Amino acid sequence: MQKIGIIDLGSNTTRLIVMAYERGRCFRLIDEVSEAVRLAEGVGASRELKPEPIRRAVHALSMFDRLCRSTGVDEVVAVGTSAIREAVNQADFWTALRAATSLDLRIISAQEEAYYGFLGAANALGLRDGFTFDTGGGSTQVVAVENGRSTESFSVQAGVLRFTERYVNSDPISKRDLRELRAAAQQAFGALEWLKGKAGQRLVGMGGTVRTLARVDIKARNYPLDRVHAYTLTRAAVAAISEQLAQKTRREREQISGLKSDRADVTLAGAVIIEALMDHGSFSELMVSGQGLREGLFYAHFLAPSDPPLLEDPRGFSVRNLARLSHFQEAHCRKVAEISLSLFDQLSSVHGYGAWERDLLAQAALIHDIGVAVGYYDHHKHGEYLVHNSSLLGFSHRESIMLSALVRNHRKGFSDAAPYAAVLQPDDSTRIARLSALLRIAEYLERGKSQVVTGLRVELGNPMRIMVTATGDAQLEVWDASRRAGLFRKAYACDLEILLAPQA
Amino acid sequence: MQKIGIIDLGSNTTRLIVMAYERGRCFRLIDEVSEAVRLAEGVGASRELKPEPIRRAVHALSMFDRLCRSTGVDEVVAVGTSAIREAVNQADFWTALRAATSLDLRIISAQEEAYYGFLGAANALGLRDGFTFDTGGGSTQVVAVENGRSTESFSVQAGVLRFTERYVNSDPISKRDLRELRAAAQQAFGALEWLKGKAGQRLVGMGGTVRTLARVDIKARNYPLDRVHAYTLTRAAVAAISEQLAQKTRREREQISGLKSDRADVTLAGAVIIEALMDHGSFSELMVSGQGLREGLFYAHFLAPSDPPLLEDPRGFSVRNLARLSHFQEAHCRKVAEISLSLFDQLSSVHGYGAWERDLLAQAALIHDIGVAVGYYDHHKHGEYLVHNSSLLGFSHRESIMLSALVRNHRKGFSDAAPYAAVLQPDDSTRIARLSALLRIAEYLERGKSQVVTGLRVELGNPMRIMVTATGDAQLEVWDASRRAGLFRKAYACDLEILLAPQA
Repeated sequence: MQKIGIIDLGSNTTRLIVMAYERGRCFRLIDEVSEAVRLAEGVGASRELKPEPIRRAVHALSMFDRLCRSTGVDEVVAVGTSAIREAVNQADFWTALRAATSLDLRIISAQEEAYYGFLGAANALGLRDGFTFDTGGGSTQVVAVENGRSTESFSVQAGVLRFTERYVNSDPISKRDLRELRAAAQQAFGALEWLKGKAGQRLVGMGGTVRTLARVDIKARNYPLDRVHAYTLTRAAVAAISEQLAQKTRREREQISGLKSDRADVTLAGAVIIEALMDHGSFSELMVSGQGLREGLFYAHFLAPSDPPLLEDPRGFSVRNLARLSHFQEAHCRKVAEISLSLFDQLSSVHGYGAWERDLLAQAALIHDIGVAVGYYDHHKHGEYLVHNSSLLGFSHRESIMLSALVRNHRKGFSDAAPYAAVLQPDDSTRIARLSALLRIAEYLERGKSQVVTGLRVELGNPMRIMVTATGDAQLEVWDASRRAGLFRKAYACDLEILLAPQA
Repeated sequence: MQKIGIIDLGSNTTRLIVMAYERGRCFRLIDEVSEAVRLAEGVGASRELKPEPIRRAVHALSMFDRLCRSTGVDEVVAVGTSAIREAVNQADFWTALRAATSLDLRIISAQEEAYYGFLGAANALGLRDGFTFDTGGGSTQVVAVENGRSTESFSVQAGVLRFTERYVNSDPISKRDLRELRAAAQQAFGALEWLKGKAGQRLVGMGGTVRTLARVDIKARNYPLDRVHAYTLTRAAVAAISEQLAQKTRREREQISGLKSDRADVTLAGAVIIEALMDHGSFSELMVSGQGLREGLFYAHFLAPSDPPLLEDPRGFSVRNLARLSHFQEAHCRKVAEISLSLFDQLSSVHGYGAWERDLLAQAALIHDIGVAVGYYDHHKHGEYLVHNSSLLGFSHRESIMLSALVRNHRKGFSDAAPYAAVLQPDDSTRIARLSALLRIAEYLERGKSQVVTGLRVELGNPMRIMVTATGDAQLEVWDASRRAGLFRKAYACDLEILLAPQA
């Protein structure tokens, strides 16, 4: 595998991620460091970077550079965004940087910044149409997406550090300051005609502020899944948080569950900016992307020369990625998928499910055994843990919980993911049972992992009958699948017989 | 890796385990099947195996054989124990077996059965002195262990299926039956002079009954760790369960939490047998081994030609085993261990800990990063999960929880494993904090994973100072270790400075 380091020097934070990858095939994050250097601190209207923030930023960058060199990173891509882009004294920064390190940092344009953010979010969430935004310390990038291409993009001078320094001069914020902050945020988006009145379209948000808002909302709602990526944040939730922040002193804000102390000062401005953006576009909700600029830079490299560098099928890609990195037994898993889908199709008049459920079942079949890497006993539960904690792309929270549940149920016992009921639909418990039952029968019809079963024919009725065709001796498979038919009987409320079809 | 299948045909259950291994180096369980065939059902005083149980057993064995063949197992070791050993009509069994499969099953003597059980338990728990027993369907094997060798062994005709069929003729059991059952159990161990009055010595129990009793006790006590291996079961707990079982009908017993329905009939007899054994030896507690006969057969093969085939250091072996199977970065982990132990030693007057804590710290250092295989973000938490769910050998529950906690804390945040407080000692929270703090400093002094730090000298005092010697540029390491010193400051209640020692 090759290793690439991606460094992003923002106005508030600088971060390094290191990806190990085989180009176009698979990748995984293997290192990450971040430091809140606040390069734009004290910049104000003069647009002059101050010496101490420069020193902090350069020190962090030189540490990142050292880390890349000592861990054998093959290539480093380092970019700087608005703070440095707009500075009148860039030269001071370059002088300090070159004195400390030979790191090759590139200042990217607001356009590029917006584009790479869009790439990160679109790959992570499977976004093909809608809008993305990335609220950083110095600016907010907004992109309109149509058919997987960014058709409009704009950088708005509304950043959380910039606005905090300009408008949040009292603790708690005074009414007057708050009014000015809100007015400035509204004004910032005013010119974006192409963003106006987009109710019903998808809006995806990136950046530390949006992740912080999601974390606070997750805690406040007792939402059962502690995961900001793909979390849906409503306009009402953002408004409630900004109101709460406006009323509290900084010290009181630090007590808010989900709000890290280094975000306690800047998040109010961030919430107000995001509210203004949502108002302008008439969006009632947004989806959080845990991936953004840095990952976008990575995808551009990883998927080159595709244009746009978007994964064709992010879900399928990341499930295969996970399967490969877990050293899955490919022939076995593909056969389990094949049998599962054959059962699914032949039972379609019974369950009435469609392409969405079929795809989930196929994905679950590919990774059903990955828990074996943890330990054989309870490997179905380990698999659930692994799927639950893998950064799969393109799955909603509901889909991700269902996928974990299918893996959990492929072998024995049963869980309908009840702790996550708030993420699911009321009939998902039945859906999980019915899909799991098919996966389990398929798994045991491939018990010997030798792809002996070549086909099957379902005879509907009660008892239901599965007639199995095999290339060789499939007694083991029929025996073990029959032993494991309990879940099927329950889920489909009928008896089940599994029989070897007479040889042709 | 090679693959070996181990099959054990008992009086109650027949099981197959498949191990993948490199001889003497590492292994992992990769498959397992069991079936409660109850071969000894209805045998009674006639000692004649009945046709239906023979049919069930042979069918299961032929399925196991097929599974081994279709999954590419290189070698199969299959053994039969008391049911078949004592049968007057062995020939009927052989005829049926040979008609169905070419599996080569070997009847082992009671001595061998006891010996392999001892091997399994001694390797799994690091037992060098004490006693082991294995209560099965037809008999109970007892072994005296001295200095890692079995010095006495005996097979007692007290088995759960045998005793249930003979004495449990009423539901709930009548007073008279219970009296006879107890008397028979006591009598069974009466002749074992070498087992008498061994209060204070270690007693290790194996088999489905002892695991069932542990599971019931775990549920009844709300013990926070749902793990029977290395669980301590007191004489009082066994007595309480046997009393409870004696008062209930079979249907009522099935409601007992932790008692599987296929164990609801035979566990009373099992509990009475184990009580009698504990009484005879004056043992106030026993430790459950999750490994026994099958694993013992495996170790004999895996460790050959060692005599006895015992791992010299089961804990160290299994931690290295886990590290290797997780593709750990060996040089990095060894350096983290080295730095951790150097800090531990130089701070010994401050923490006052000894060899036990030192060993835990060293083990945790070797596997601190294994969670990266799940995902980089939160890999410390994934590592905790992996350690918690790995079948590590020779660790008590307390040690295992502490080891997981150290891995959990190597990077950021802090957990003192509070949910497992009932498994820990009152001062373990402090112990975990102090050891974790050392591991974390060591991890960041090896941030670049390039073994740049070659030595360190601790200057005690407040602030405490760590003077770092390095072969090259260790600024990254000193910077990141300094950023992560918060836990150290808290755990040792003093300030900490980490400095590069002036070059010699």
